[in-house]
Amino acid sequence: MKAAILGATGYTGMILLRLLSDHPEIDEIIAVSSTRAGKSIKEIDPGVYTAVEKKMQSTDVKLVSVDEAAAMNPEVTFAALPHLESAKICGPFFETSVVIDLSADFRIKDPVIFEKAYGQKPERQDLLDAAVYGLCEIYRSDIKKANLISNPGCYPTATLLPLIPVIQKFGACGKIVANAMSGISGAGKKAVFNNLFVERTENCGAYAPGKSHRHQPEIKKELDAAASAAGKDLGAEGANLFFTPHLVPLKRGMEITTILDVPEDMAAGLTDEAIDALYTEYYGNSPFVAWDANRFPQSRDVWAANSCRIGWRIEGRSLMLFSTIDNLVKGASGQAVQNMNIRFGFDETAGLRIYGEL
Amino acid sequence: MKAAILGATGYTGMILLRLLSDHPEIDEIIAVSSTRAGKSIKEIDPGVYTAVEKKMQSTDVKLVSVDEAAAMNPEVTFAALPHLESAKICGPFFETSVVIDLSADFRIKDPVIFEKAYGQKPERQDLLDAAVYGLCEIYRSDIKKANLISNPGCYPTATLLPLIPVIQKFGACGKIVANAMSGISGAGKKAVFNNLFVERTENCGAYAPGKSHRHQPEIKKELDAAASAAGKDLGAEGANLFFTPHLVPLKRGMEITTILDVPEDMAAGLTDEAIDALYTEYYGNSPFVAWDANRFPQSRDVWAANSCRIGWRIEGRSLMLFSTIDNLVKGASGQAVQNMNIRFGFDETAGLRIYGEL
Amino acid sequence: MKAAILGATGYTGMILLRLLSDHPEIDEIIAVSSTRAGKSIKEIDPGVYTAVEKKMQSTDVKLVSVDEAAAMNPEVTFAALPHLESAKICGPFFETSVVIDLSADFRIKDPVIFEKAYGQKPERQDLLDAAVYGLCEIYRSDIKKANLISNPGCYPTATLLPLIPVIQKFGACGKIVANAMSGISGAGKKAVFNNLFVERTENCGAYAPGKSHRHQPEIKKELDAAASAAGKDLGAEGANLFFTPHLVPLKRGMEITTILDVPEDMAAGLTDEAIDALYTEYYGNSPFVAWDANRFPQSRDVWAANSCRIGWRIEGRSLMLFSTIDNLVKGASGQAVQNMNIRFGFDETAGLRIYGEL
Amino acid sequence: MKAAILGATGYTGMILLRLLSDHPEIDEIIAVSSTRAGKSIKEIDPGVYTAVEKKMQSTDVKLVSVDEAAAMNPEVTFAALPHLESAKICGPFFETSVVIDLSADFRIKDPVIFEKAYGQKPERQDLLDAAVYGLCEIYRSDIKKANLISNPGCYPTATLLPLIPVIQKFGACGKIVANAMSGISGAGKKAVFNNLFVERTENCGAYAPGKSHRHQPEIKKELDAAASAAGKDLGAEGANLFFTPHLVPLKRGMEITTILDVPEDMAAGLTDEAIDALYTEYYGNSPFVAWDANRFPQSRDVWAANSCRIGWRIEGRSLMLFSTIDNLVKGASGQAVQNMNIRFGFDETAGLRIYGEL
Repeated sequence: MKAAILGATGYTGMILLRLLSDHPEIDEIIAVSSTRAGKSIKEIDPGVYTAVEKKMQSTDVKLVSVDEAAAMNPEVTFAALPHLESAKICGPFFETSVVIDLSADFRIKDPVIFEKAYGQKPERQDLLDAAVYGLCEIYRSDIKKANLISNPGCYPTATLLPLIPVIQKFGACGKIVANAMSGISGAGKKAVFNNLFVERTENCGAYAPGKSHRHQPEIKKELDAAASAAGKDLGAEGANLFFTPHLVPLKRGMEITTILDVPEDMAAGLTDEAIDALYTEYYGNSPFVAWDANRFPQSRDVWAANSCRIGWRIEGRSLMLFSTIDNLVKGASGQAVQNMNIRFGFDETAGLRIYGEL
Repeated sequence: MKAAILGATGYTGMILLRLLSDHPEIDEIIAVSSTRAGKSIKEIDPGVYTAVEKKMQSTDVKLVSVDEAAAMNPEVTFAALPHLESAKICGPFFETSVVIDLSADFRIKDPVIFEKAYGQKPERQDLLDAAVYGLCEIYRSDIKKANLISNPGCYPTATLLPLIPVIQKFGACGKIVANAMSGISGAGKKAVFNNLFVERTENCGAYAPGKSHRHQPEIKKELDAAASAAGKDLGAEGANLFFTPHLVPLKRGMEITTILDVPEDMAAGLTDEAIDALYTEYYGNSPFVAWDANRFPQSRDVWAANSCRIGWRIEGRSLMLFSTIDNLVKGASGQAVQNMNIRFGFDETAGLRIYGEL
Repeated sequence: MKAAILGATGYTGMILLRLLSDHPEIDEIIAVSSTRAGKSIKEIDPGVYTAVEKKMQSTDVKLVSVDEAAAMNPEVTFAALPHLESAKICGPFFETSVVIDLSADFRIKDPVIFEKAYGQKPERQDLLDAAVYGLCEIYRSDIKKANLISNPGCYPTATLLPLIPVIQKFGACGKIVANAMSGISGAGKKAVFNNLFVERTENCGAYAPGKSHRHQPEIKKELDAAASAAGKDLGAEGANLFFTPHLVPLKRGMEITTILDVPEDMAAGLTDEAIDALYTEYYGNSPFVAWDANRFPQSRDVWAANSCRIGWRIEGRSLMLFSTIDNLVKGASGQAVQNMNIRFGFDETAGLRIYGEL
Repeated sequence: MKAAILGATGYTGMILLRLLSDHPEIDEIIAVSSTRAGKSIKEIDPGVYTAVEKKMQSTDVKLVSVDEAAAMNPEVTFAALPHLESAKICGPFFETSVVIDLSADFRIKDPVIFEKAYGQKPERQDLLDAAVYGLCEIYRSDIKKANLISNPGCYPTATLLPLIPVIQKFGACGKIVANAMSGISGAGKKAVFNNLFVERTENCGAYAPGKSHRHQPEIKKELDAAASAAGKDLGAEGANLFFTPHLVPLKRGMEITTILDVPEDMAAGLTDEAIDALYTEYYGNSPFVAWDANRFPQSRDVWAANSCRIGWRIEGRSLMLFSTIDNLVKGASGQAVQNMNIRFGFDETAGLRIYGEL
């Protein structure tokens, strides 16, 4: 199969180059860059060029332009582009391709919420309406039929996987406090002061707390949808989510610590066994999700893996959830490949690692 | 003045060597180690030896034993020893010295809570009863008269400084959720796998969450005491504090993100101006505390400084607090020196930095 | 095929667990630990347990003792044990297994040089005499027939791959100055102060310089052997190698910067084209070696890969060589798997990555 | 005394803000920025603002423009500006100020060498001719009389301090091989991809090797001058220096490993005692230089200090030198303050630390 990567020079694009080089079902990789077409992969990403050259059986693979790529009729297109650019660029690829989009452009269908988060109306409401939210373990059956898959953000993936089963079982949980720690690659490959090594090493802190981060509405709408699907009433305002991200000096990795109280009348049902059974019900057949009571997963456990690890602790009627992913893999490019695997009927783990690098 | 440092080879001892070498009121430093007496400072800590030698006007300063140190009659003794050892060792120094203890041995007066946190009864309940809790900005007048000052833990210092004024003003706050990130030096200088470079770099995660960390009761008893002192009723159980620490790959530094709801009938009083006025009332004359609405302090802002920076954000009746300290300075050795300064009537900032290293 | 890993809980053992879990020719992994037999992989290495469980089709894989492992008749045994222990322990495995040893116990055949480097005579001179030095790209044909393969050290691998072709072509090169930078995992998983996060982060420096590091004689004997094999006379003392390692705050990675002068009468032959042709001759069919004139490989280019990248720069008759490997992969466990692949006639790249992780 | 800092928002400017805030002889700091005049220090550098405000007895210190600063008649001006800009901007300050320049604009008096290194002719050859090279320990007496002091580069400072005494004693040393490791702040505060956290963490490698780095000619001309001053003949080409820098994932810090051979007829004089005596002769009265035979200084030993630590090892007639500084302090802003101290007759250590931060 022929795969195109739009935005192959960014961090998520670079991970896609690696994953697709190793993918047994991919024969050809079309690496696309609007600004650096014509350059050799070797110049752009000296870490991966030997792998791409081997896959392509070529001694010099070059980046191509968007137009050139569209003319090559890829069967799957990964759009690893900045927010608000993706929707403008990926149009031509729908003719031949399933499009898996890693930006935020097709995640929030409600144009009011979209505009609040991203400062403008969606570029392509038509495409947005048709997009399927690619949180694999939750929407697997929809993904199988989708032609536009909107890959979730890294914070939403790591926050939602442990939370959705809990919300669907326990319903209204009052205030949900989720604190996230993220590696710096989550900010993308942008040459700005704030991302410099000297600024970020030996430094940590919160940003965009409470309800002010763009991913807060993305998480909230999924919690609301999950409750609704399960017939649980979260009240007029829906989930009362406080989500606070923190930057920590990691290259890759993410951990979410969430605390919520289950309703008083359901407190007796809040046991380690019940939570274990709940996750078994939801994720028993999901190769990338693992969980344990009273264990607190470390971000390294899933470094470079497409996995999500979940732990929890119960204190009275309070439930603390701990979850970790690699923000560039399960939080971006790996989940995109998993979506491709699901969509095209490949083994769901094809080309993806389930172990964390040391 | 002559100062002894018990445990001069640990991390907090090493910081004390640095701070006292630069301190204008200290003439002589007695570096003490029970296991390495007789060794040169140069062998033990090649970073600081030139400074200690300069202060001591000697070309080879050696570590001395506990007995030797006691016989040298220091006027102030810093006990930078492991928990449960300090209370056994520091006895002889009370004859000539004010003792400033950096361990947990004199922090929790209630023997039941002490035993729950530290696994055994206090060694010296008599000393414990006499000790003053050395959270400088809160107990300044008690510290002036104390002969045994129990230096607070790093997590309690960073958590309590922003919280105490809020608790005293608003009283019962329901569940208080505090999430901490800490640098690895907080674990002390222990040669265990968990503290190895390879284990901690590119890794982060929670440990001892909710109510299971030893510092949770230390923070809680101060919150209860603060409420009580202000005539606020927190109910039979006192403060309902969920405190969850996380290890992040920093050498030094700590950040706490706290969220609480003020009582509904006080929600109207929860404004940026009110919080600013509150901190001005408490910390207007404290050189080491600074604060700002809607700013989120970064751990680097206070790296190597004795400062605490506070930020906050209001969302309805929820108040989010952000605070940061250097765990080895304001969270340990710097606050110990500040306690000495207060106790002996020196300038409170003598020998201490108020700026964060780049 | 059934593979045993002696020392599965150390860093090289942990990498072997990862590589063999993904290896298409391995059906069964026997994870061995003399001190922690009976414990679950999940407790020991939470990053890899899901992968090992999948490979073993078991929900709880446990470490076994050395005796248990020997009785399971593995066909290949990886000994990832400390120096001077390996030779004592691996004996029973020779009955059924090819043994690939990652320690230094079978690297230096001369007992005088061995004793100088390791402080005692070799434990098993008989095995040592029979061992083949497993520098894959140089000794491929010997490896195919070996039953004991001595995996090279990380510093020797990274230093020798660029140097051997040069020595064989140019012969006597006078003083060879090689400076190495190494990640901290090179020190192994030892709980000592010097390996603590706080000691190694924001810190770098040289150790064991010139001719005092244990790997210097290992490199020198290979240079001498290479010259001899090519009929080049290096003089009575052989190669005059100054090798100076430096610790830098990386988890994984290694870079060597080497400078030497070619003989005056061969200076005209020292051109970029000549060096390129030389490496093409030696490594044209080696999937894991890549090279380029006037490029300076970065350690990240090969992070987690089994690759070696080489660059060079010519200045008059001076040749500067730059080489980089991942010390845990091509410098240890990856090369061990490559040796297995060669020995058993598998695809040389089976189970090994050729791209560097981002 | 009133001090101006041109370029107060760069890394060397930010360190100057810290050092001058603590300096006992400075009453007033004028922080200058051509692009951000009018902004508060608090916005620009939240780590130091409280210290600057305390020094200035103001609650809001603002950056001023170059013209405003010149009109304030500072008595000393630190120019912490990019190369090739400094010479254009610092003119007006000569009327009232001693100027201490941290750029490369006044370091290389020979216009041909200057142009080769910096790509254009010097802007102000007249000023360049009058400038004194501010390597404090070597040119102390010249610095006392200088009105324009050209602060040395970080690589030259760390390389020259151990080498100059050796060159002056032993003369012609054949090839000198110096390998440097540098922290990332050495690249300045430039928002380019190459300086991003994700690019530099878990990564190391060489750049601009041999004779191609701009600092190579700066070091070489000082070695030539030193030899000449001591009556040693280095031959027509002067010192044959190979200088190869490497980037390592440190925020701050620098280590140089140098190897050279002394002339055969002087080999008998190459002893630890002789080298110790040599450094005692040169640096016995220099508070910031310390040295030891057979010790290999670590960059942390001088982190945030203005110190240089030197170690060495002798192997036959080869001498290996090891030296370390903090690139931002002794390699930039600290040495600039030391130059001010010398020039104005203050205590040479005023406002400077001699110990390395833990």
